[in-house]
Amino acid sequence: MRAALGLAARGLGRVWPNPAVGCVIVRDGRVVGRGRTQDGGRPHAEVVALTQAGRAAEGADVYVTLEPCAHHGKTPPCSDALVAAGPARVITALTDPDPRTAGQGHARLRAAGIDVVTGVLADEAERLQEGFLARVTSGRPMLTLKLAGSLDGRIATASGESRWITGPEARRLVHGMRARHDAVLIGSGTARADDPMLTVRGLGVDRQPVRIVASRRLDLNPKGRLAASARDVPLWLCHGPDAPTKRIAEWTEQGAILLECPLAGSQLDMAGLMAALGAAGLTRVFCEGGGQLAASLLGAGLVDELIAFTGGVALGAEGWPGLAAMGIGALDEAPRFRLNRLEEIGGDAVAYWRPHRENP
Amino acid sequence: MRAALGLAARGLGRVWPNPAVGCVIVRDGRVVGRGRTQDGGRPHAEVVALTQAGRAAEGADVYVTLEPCAHHGKTPPCSDALVAAGPARVITALTDPDPRTAGQGHARLRAAGIDVVTGVLADEAERLQEGFLARVTSGRPMLTLKLAGSLDGRIATASGESRWITGPEARRLVHGMRARHDAVLIGSGTARADDPMLTVRGLGVDRQPVRIVASRRLDLNPKGRLAASARDVPLWLCHGPDAPTKRIAEWTEQGAILLECPLAGSQLDMAGLMAALGAAGLTRVFCEGGGQLAASLLGAGLVDELIAFTGGVALGAEGWPGLAAMGIGALDEAPRFRLNRLEEIGGDAVAYWRPHRENP
Repeated sequence: MRAALGLAARGLGRVWPNPAVGCVIVRDGRVVGRGRTQDGGRPHAEVVALTQAGRAAEGADVYVTLEPCAHHGKTPPCSDALVAAGPARVITALTDPDPRTAGQGHARLRAAGIDVVTGVLADEAERLQEGFLARVTSGRPMLTLKLAGSLDGRIATASGESRWITGPEARRLVHGMRARHDAVLIGSGTARADDPMLTVRGLGVDRQPVRIVASRRLDLNPKGRLAASARDVPLWLCHGPDAPTKRIAEWTEQGAILLECPLAGSQLDMAGLMAALGAAGLTRVFCEGGGQLAASLLGAGLVDELIAFTGGVALGAEGWPGLAAMGIGALDEAPRFRLNRLEEIGGDAVAYWRPHRENP
Repeated sequence: MRAALGLAARGLGRVWPNPAVGCVIVRDGRVVGRGRTQDGGRPHAEVVALTQAGRAAEGADVYVTLEPCAHHGKTPPCSDALVAAGPARVITALTDPDPRTAGQGHARLRAAGIDVVTGVLADEAERLQEGFLARVTSGRPMLTLKLAGSLDGRIATASGESRWITGPEARRLVHGMRARHDAVLIGSGTARADDPMLTVRGLGVDRQPVRIVASRRLDLNPKGRLAASARDVPLWLCHGPDAPTKRIAEWTEQGAILLECPLAGSQLDMAGLMAALGAAGLTRVFCEGGGQLAASLLGAGLVDELIAFTGGVALGAEGWPGLAAMGIGALDEAPRFRLNRLEEIGGDAVAYWRPHRENP
């Protein structure tokens, strides 16, 4: 199962809207087939592994990180493919909460006389499938928020200089994080200030995450790098109902995908925005700021993991804050996180935080 | 030597203005004497260990973390005591840079026919003796700056609420850090806002560090807890030449020690303040903010170690900044640090940073 989870992890950021599943087939103590859900979500892991195993799958043990699907989607159900292959046992980590499967995959296998064991390494599998599970159960993707700042939480000097607060190794790590998410999300302020490409660079990846900018009125630079590259790397723009029709037309013409989101007061509604991204198929979103968007997402309780990079530099209070105003009165209103992991990278610190929920 | 360093470490914060020295005497493979410089700096480690060893010191190996002193201070020179005891070998970690010793301790031992080995575990000893070495070589104590804030570098909500951003384990660790320093230093803003005791609590220590407040004009609460406890736990006030005479008299009457420091522009000159603390005998100072004092010390390049505590809470830009304005224009003017160590404590993160000097 650990090998299957390792295979599955390679699909993170590449298989949405499907889950990143891994499958290993073992017969007589020998691995006869392995597979992960392929880029774009098809074929599924089980089919890849069964194809590799061929006749050897008969009587074998099949390890799968998620319950095999039971419904006809763009592919026939994997549970049927497994029944046809005739393994002795199927071992899974998780039951698929998708209502079209939800135990029916396991049931079909059992009905065909296959021995089924479930819940193996379930915690690891849940963590790995967090994005898919969030989308199925809550309709929104999981959200990782990256903050990167100075010792005192600043992201730029008073004059806006921010290159570089963290070092090259930390920035490389960020590119790896982007690659393991379906999409990278920033706010319009950051898009205007930095005109970033938001692509994964230096890691030899052949598949880029979707780039998303949240911009209520689409007041973005139509001559910038994001615009210029919109036909090469997907660019989605989340705008409000009041975005000028002319801009919507212009950006569509540039090759961007436009997503209308509801407002909450004078800003985009963050829960609505995340629901729109879930409806569009995303399971894992990596937000890289800026301070306004990060504060809004935190304030709305939508952050599933917060990754804080700290560079060894002190900028002082004139520097730009990593989080904008949050309207917090008393300390007990503030969103709380608990430390999950600490890491040193190239002289910078990285802290991984998880929401502190009262009844976890 | 490692045992001697361990003994020495127990004296940190308790032996100023003297160095925290440890001594272990070994004869025929058996420890016959051990000692550390006693609280207040006397008797010295060597004398404690020699007394314990008695006649067994003759022909023994003596491990000392610092070159034995060669001058008559408040105690006779340890090098003479060693010569009288007649060991076969003396092994030291460091040469004492104090000009009154500076190699003469080693020379006396050699002149008496004792075998002398130096530089054993010198790096560890230098780190341990950092405060003493800084005072002897630069005239100022070593300075540890503690920052403790939220994920976004804030130390309180807009309304000033700061209890608690970090958890009880982190706060207990801070008390241990206080205990290993000669003095705890804060600015007047923090003194007014928090009226803290600044004592070491909950660790059963019998000796409190000196409490220091930097306050140019001594505009502090004369009815506060610091004032009320000034006769029980040392309270030093660093003020400017223009502090009102009446306040100087009042605070002296309360039991505080007043130290006049030079100004730099409209603020206390930080290098001058640190020099005054060095002249008063301090070797290790622990600064706990606030944001103004921390920014001034960082700006003046006086921070030897920066310890950043981060609690898992997001406060937003209305929160109080951990560092005040520093007047930094370009990013390359900002003080740089490199990460030395990371630690998880009770769900909070602690990062230990050291100044990044171009040619270390």
